[in-house]
Amino acid sequence: MTKNKPNPHPLSNKNLFKFQSYAKRGKKEVLGFLDFPRTQTIVDHFGFDENLTFQQRYLIADQHWKGDNGPILFYTGNEGDITWFCNNTGFMWDVAEELNAMLVFAEHRYYGESLPFGNESFSDSKHLNYLTSEQALADFAVLIEYLKTNIAGARYSPVIAIGGSYGGMLAAWFRMKYPHVVVGALAASAPIWQFGDLVPCGTYFSIVTNDFRKSGTGCADSIRNSWNAIDNLSLTDAGLQWLSNTFLLCSPLKSPQDAVLLKNWLSETWVNLAMVNYPYKADFLQPLPAWPIQEVCKFLKDPSLPDKLLLQNVFQAVNLYYNYSGVVSCLDMSETVCTLSLLNCSPACTEMVMPMCTDGVNDMFEPQKWDFDALSEECYRLWGVRPRPSWILSMYGGKNISSHSNIIFSNGGLDPWSAGGVTQNISDSLVAIVIPDGAHHLDLRSRNPLDPKSVQQARATEICYMKQWIKEASHSPWESTLEK
Amino acid sequence: MTKNKPNPHPLSNKNLFKFQSYAKRGKKEVLGFLDFPRTQTIVDHFGFDENLTFQQRYLIADQHWKGDNGPILFYTGNEGDITWFCNNTGFMWDVAEELNAMLVFAEHRYYGESLPFGNESFSDSKHLNYLTSEQALADFAVLIEYLKTNIAGARYSPVIAIGGSYGGMLAAWFRMKYPHVVVGALAASAPIWQFGDLVPCGTYFSIVTNDFRKSGTGCADSIRNSWNAIDNLSLTDAGLQWLSNTFLLCSPLKSPQDAVLLKNWLSETWVNLAMVNYPYKADFLQPLPAWPIQEVCKFLKDPSLPDKLLLQNVFQAVNLYYNYSGVVSCLDMSETVCTLSLLNCSPACTEMVMPMCTDGVNDMFEPQKWDFDALSEECYRLWGVRPRPSWILSMYGGKNISSHSNIIFSNGGLDPWSAGGVTQNISDSLVAIVIPDGAHHLDLRSRNPLDPKSVQQARATEICYMKQWIKEASHSPWESTLEK
Repeated sequence: MTKNKPNPHPLSNKNLFKFQSYAKRGKKEVLGFLDFPRTQTIVDHFGFDENLTFQQRYLIADQHWKGDNGPILFYTGNEGDITWFCNNTGFMWDVAEELNAMLVFAEHRYYGESLPFGNESFSDSKHLNYLTSEQALADFAVLIEYLKTNIAGARYSPVIAIGGSYGGMLAAWFRMKYPHVVVGALAASAPIWQFGDLVPCGTYFSIVTNDFRKSGTGCADSIRNSWNAIDNLSLTDAGLQWLSNTFLLCSPLKSPQDAVLLKNWLSETWVNLAMVNYPYKADFLQPLPAWPIQEVCKFLKDPSLPDKLLLQNVFQAVNLYYNYSGVVSCLDMSETVCTLSLLNCSPACTEMVMPMCTDGVNDMFEPQKWDFDALSEECYRLWGVRPRPSWILSMYGGKNISSHSNIIFSNGGLDPWSAGGVTQNISDSLVAIVIPDGAHHLDLRSRNPLDPKSVQQARATEICYMKQWIKEASHSPWESTLEK
Repeated sequence: MTKNKPNPHPLSNKNLFKFQSYAKRGKKEVLGFLDFPRTQTIVDHFGFDENLTFQQRYLIADQHWKGDNGPILFYTGNEGDITWFCNNTGFMWDVAEELNAMLVFAEHRYYGESLPFGNESFSDSKHLNYLTSEQALADFAVLIEYLKTNIAGARYSPVIAIGGSYGGMLAAWFRMKYPHVVVGALAASAPIWQFGDLVPCGTYFSIVTNDFRKSGTGCADSIRNSWNAIDNLSLTDAGLQWLSNTFLLCSPLKSPQDAVLLKNWLSETWVNLAMVNYPYKADFLQPLPAWPIQEVCKFLKDPSLPDKLLLQNVFQAVNLYYNYSGVVSCLDMSETVCTLSLLNCSPACTEMVMPMCTDGVNDMFEPQKWDFDALSEECYRLWGVRPRPSWILSMYGGKNISSHSNIIFSNGGLDPWSAGGVTQNISDSLVAIVIPDGAHHLDLRSRNPLDPKSVQQARATEICYMKQWIKEASHSPWESTLEK
């Protein structure tokens, strides 16, 4: 993994093109940008000793907005380049058309081009000190205030927060903590309960396993049997050599310990496939065909094969994930993304401590207990910090959130992150939408002819709630007498 | 003023005695204390680089508590020694009896004995960096979690936040930001709107003026005329000498510029009198007789007197405030308290920027415009920091707070801080109580035979809401199925 290294994505698809052409029109000079705008953001909202600021990037599009305090859809950026999330959140463009809404995509500090200390941002724990969800939410609140002050006709625009995954948590938490800033939130695939002991630590991996089990006979069992096969081969130098060659590894395995790296990398691949198991060809984490787990499982039909034959099939499977385009010459185990599995990223070593475990029975992985102490040691070694696992619960309330309002929690039944998501209504205005055929925040993607009915219905319900929030906001008697 | 210097108050009155005898019983060993307990608190809740902790003090009393998840009244400590607030919040003891509640008084970080860096806490802006309302609220949330975990029978206790003045703001903000921790809040005399341009900057001093106007003929006008009299006398050395002698100043005035100090000190005295204009003998900021402004005004009947006679009367008035006990040999202009007028304290230079102004027409003070730039310069000179005046609005929502619930805002009609308070209902569960005869958080004081009817009614209403919140909490279906 790349330890939060900023990883600019090419501006490829039509949505980004919209931004570019939009920006090039040069109409938004009120905001002082000709390219993607930046805003001067305070590095430490919660301390006043050092008054440093940094350039935070955001994307803005008002093709469909008609001014006159019309609605704003605000994407609460998560752990990556904001253009990447923009490219994979086509739903917002579809809604913008329907609601005549302005779109804003705010980049999360420390990602993309929004680096508080430039290239030094990840150099040590001192520079990483301001990478927290609380600082990110404060960034969003201040940015919205800035936009409402500086865009003519936006002063009283109702703002709706939208986000997926960690960004979905941010959207939900943003509505909880700043209800004066956003009238509601769509939190897609947001595992806000994957903390403490709120949910069982094993559900996540058992969902991954079910996805493979349902996608082909023998598929999950083949993977379960592969761990032992790798162990057997890694006992000899010839076996390690064979593994390195078979898996086209860029860096060959040198010792039996390296087999652990291989197994971790494979595990992460299966998890990623479960997240992006979309019903059509897509490119979120990787370019992939429709229903990629079904494709992968075509290689994994016979779990009883001898070790080498089994592992050759496993290679075919992962090669489909990493090399669907066919242009990759070797597979790089270190090249995983710090995306949705926050466990690999520095926030997992501070506040985002999500207990995970496997038992090898309800799931297809090697049994591994949740070991907080080991995590803490590893965090101290890697980042020089110790995690505070209970802080998120104190801050955001755990399961005790019923006094809040106007949040939609959507979850995909295929998505491992639904394990930590809100999948039952909490109140009339804290509602859960489950998309049985959906992977990770499928509902946030552009409409597609191959969309299952369940996601179409989910999106329709989401839009319905958004309309209601916007309507309520324009009828709020108290604020309107005060401000307008 | 004493720049937040910890100023331990003698443990004098019966409530403190209760604590002492309670502590001495040594029954609370589960919490590990034989004296006032301390808890290990994280210095920076919002950053993980330095994992420092400090000892935070709190007071606890359960004489009336019957366990079994009975209610907890939690005082959100403000800018001073917690024993001082405890001594002046007798209402909580009265309510404890009525509701069988446990009492907790939490000391605010950087005050009393809860110093994050010991004697170094105020040494520079680096050490002062963690003195913010956000950190204080996080302290409270973590402390309550700790108490609920460690006190048998308190796991599901409904907690009600109670505070006065800045502590009242904290109580309200605590409910807004941590509704999962407290079921409701009583925010007494909490000027949550004394920020930005939410209220006119001059109302505060016009309320002070009205208090003096109503308390004696000629009283406010005498004070208004005194400024010019001081200016006249401070033109000569003999005049300065005369002022120093007449006002029994510990440090004599040496130049016409020193006259500004004298006038500021007198202004602060009149403001303080307005805050503590209680209907009975009391000792909050100073030991004072009942209705002290009426007493003071007995000296200030004739505003048309010549300068020296007028100022001799002004001295009699302030001497009543500073020397009611009659034991003070000289008056020390530097000995004012960093209490409720946060303008003198370091938070006024970071987030607690409260615009104030005078015009000399609607008030009895010398005209002074609100000058943010001057404040900013002074803050930089004194503390090495720049204030961020809009941050509190972004953080806590300004007037746009109607989506919250279960907060009582009580204000006294005599209290200048009511200028920035919520004095009209916002919703069914964000309610305002106005006590026309009340000074600064009179309702939080012990019941007294001389209490006006209005404060008796206010307290009855407050208790009524508290009972309702407690009842609602025990019927909350969602949390109870999840947790119990």
